[in-house]
Amino acid sequence: MKTKSEMQKEMFKFEIEKISKKSKARTGMITTPHGKVKTPAFIPVATFGVIKGGLDFKDYQKTKTQCQITNTFHFIDLDRTKEVEKIGGLHKFFNCNKPIFTDSGGFQVFSLGKGAEFGLGKIGSIFPEQRRREKPSNSLVKRINDRGVHFKSPRDGREIWLTPESSALAQKELGADFIYLFDVCGSPLDGKKTTKEEMELSHEWFKRFLNTKISSNQRIFGIIQGGIYRDLRIKSTEFVNDLDVFGIAIGGALGKKKEDMYKTISWVNEKIDWQKPHHLLGIGDLDVMEKIIKLGIDLFDCALPTRIARHGMALTSKGPIDLKKSILKDKFKPLDRNCDCFVCQNYTQAQINFFFKAKEQIAGRLLTIHNLYFIETLLEKIREKIAENKF
Amino acid sequence: MKTKSEMQKEMFKFEIEKISKKSKARTGMITTPHGKVKTPAFIPVATFGVIKGGLDFKDYQKTKTQCQITNTFHFIDLDRTKEVEKIGGLHKFFNCNKPIFTDSGGFQVFSLGKGAEFGLGKIGSIFPEQRRREKPSNSLVKRINDRGVHFKSPRDGREIWLTPESSALAQKELGADFIYLFDVCGSPLDGKKTTKEEMELSHEWFKRFLNTKISSNQRIFGIIQGGIYRDLRIKSTEFVNDLDVFGIAIGGALGKKKEDMYKTISWVNEKIDWQKPHHLLGIGDLDVMEKIIKLGIDLFDCALPTRIARHGMALTSKGPIDLKKSILKDKFKPLDRNCDCFVCQNYTQAQINFFFKAKEQIAGRLLTIHNLYFIETLLEKIREKIAENKF
Repeated sequence: MKTKSEMQKEMFKFEIEKISKKSKARTGMITTPHGKVKTPAFIPVATFGVIKGGLDFKDYQKTKTQCQITNTFHFIDLDRTKEVEKIGGLHKFFNCNKPIFTDSGGFQVFSLGKGAEFGLGKIGSIFPEQRRREKPSNSLVKRINDRGVHFKSPRDGREIWLTPESSALAQKELGADFIYLFDVCGSPLDGKKTTKEEMELSHEWFKRFLNTKISSNQRIFGIIQGGIYRDLRIKSTEFVNDLDVFGIAIGGALGKKKEDMYKTISWVNEKIDWQKPHHLLGIGDLDVMEKIIKLGIDLFDCALPTRIARHGMALTSKGPIDLKKSILKDKFKPLDRNCDCFVCQNYTQAQINFFFKAKEQIAGRLLTIHNLYFIETLLEKIREKIAENKF
Repeated sequence: MKTKSEMQKEMFKFEIEKISKKSKARTGMITTPHGKVKTPAFIPVATFGVIKGGLDFKDYQKTKTQCQITNTFHFIDLDRTKEVEKIGGLHKFFNCNKPIFTDSGGFQVFSLGKGAEFGLGKIGSIFPEQRRREKPSNSLVKRINDRGVHFKSPRDGREIWLTPESSALAQKELGADFIYLFDVCGSPLDGKKTTKEEMELSHEWFKRFLNTKISSNQRIFGIIQGGIYRDLRIKSTEFVNDLDVFGIAIGGALGKKKEDMYKTISWVNEKIDWQKPHHLLGIGDLDVMEKIIKLGIDLFDCALPTRIARHGMALTSKGPIDLKKSILKDKFKPLDRNCDCFVCQNYTQAQINFFFKAKEQIAGRLLTIHNLYFIETLLEKIREKIAENKF
């Protein structure tokens, strides 16, 4: 008979299925108490527990979405982690029967701090050509010290301390399947000295986080730090390898252009534990997807496909289409003739264009469903190709 | 064998089923090529062809909605009537297999003209206690004369002439089952002289409208004018009775308070053709519903139940609930325990409150579905009561 601890161990598994002979790409399967995730997998961003654009839990079926990542910081900011816990966690609160990931709040250290100050989005910081044109604003981070990060709420100006312990507690209350260690997410503008200090502070916080009690129904991802510096990345990889974590994420600044990011991943790859799932944090737009999968990334999350959907951009096999353009007003054909999603089966470009012109919310909802389905379909094909050694 | 004209006649029917012995209330059935409508019926407003709040055509099933009314003016303003015609009308364009009504644009004569100038909403003008607090703004109506109404587009400032002929043409292109004669919808602030002039101009326009070719798959509603003046209402009722129309609507200004409206309906009732369906234009909030049904109204449309939904207000058997209130944050119970709609079966007050706090679009979508279902359920019960002579 299996012991309780053995059974609990089996609730969560990462099994590698096929390894490409041509690259580091591999297919695998993550098992959780809330279902399975075939990897490589895209994790849609569901900031407040639901994918933006008005999708309900039944719409998720229309997207083929396997899982989602939700932002712990926003639940702390809204002061709702206790209520979510009371009803039994995010799965219950959002009628979600899929694996859920929560980030630790570390990204907000960057986003509301240096990110705001220098007008950098996470993606913008890596790919200037896709930079979200944001006006620099005042940093909402008051201080970062041994204790943690002292924020001002972007919502109501209230002061919030986010610490390894409070991040762990909040993530325990939210009850996601996968939770993340709390880190200082650096900026691509940081020099080596700052990056090293941030890495060392993150490592200290990781130990404290791991000493905080979470639920036995949760597993942890560690986060490799070290910015764009090879020796720091290698050091952090070795540190995270030694932690008692389920998976490994690559976090922090990834440079100023795509090549910096690929180089950074390849440094990490020199040492990373290949038995664990690898998650590239916050990156997953179409034009880097294949390349990062070839570098051994199993999981990636990105707000871009759903954000551009709400702004009128559809991903298609013939490239993106801007559904706000009046030229589409009599295009009575689907977004993508090769797509069999709910939207392409039922709506035409002319209709969706009309909804954007009329500012009807259904517009963004339809494109969100389509874009997610499009990416999932793409990944299905990539997984097949890997399995057949054609990738 | 039936002639083509006989068959076309049978495509549209209004059959009265039960007449209350206690009031003028009656139940009936409207038959159209796109299905049936049990009366008394609420017609949800779908300004741009879809009910606001991000509902798709499959969501309509969740609402028990029987039909919808769409605003012709907005399609003219967006310059899309030709495209809708090209694909085969509103039903095709919006995947809608239910009866559709289109208004004529007459209400916009009021809304963008005197309504804007005096800060009056249609409802506000009748029930000051529920008045939408709107700042008066410049009238967008440049002139009303024999030809028609000369508007400035609220969207892009373009100048538009709306005439009986252009309204009929646009409504033909949109292809709704039921279309409305083009009228001058007066203001509750108008004196008798102005109201009489507006009525007479409307009557002239009705004749021109009826001389314009529409589709054989469409039927027309006439609109009784005359404001709050008994003799004018009676005169207009007699005029509309004599027109070759399928149904009769009560339009124009209905006074400043509910009692004015009830009185106006009772004047109309002295003469109205009781064999035809009666539609009270633009009125249908809960607190007048029973009363107007007792006055013999078969159809009523109102944007209020869906508008308040998007602003956080749920209709329940225990009165309205404001879902934006933080006090609901741990109310893990449905909006209404007596309701078996999709929302009440799957979501709690705490969840919906969270969605409003997080400004997630799903919030308004869920309340829209619930409010429409709530009203339809209420009407089912009212129809039963009428049939059982208990109303």
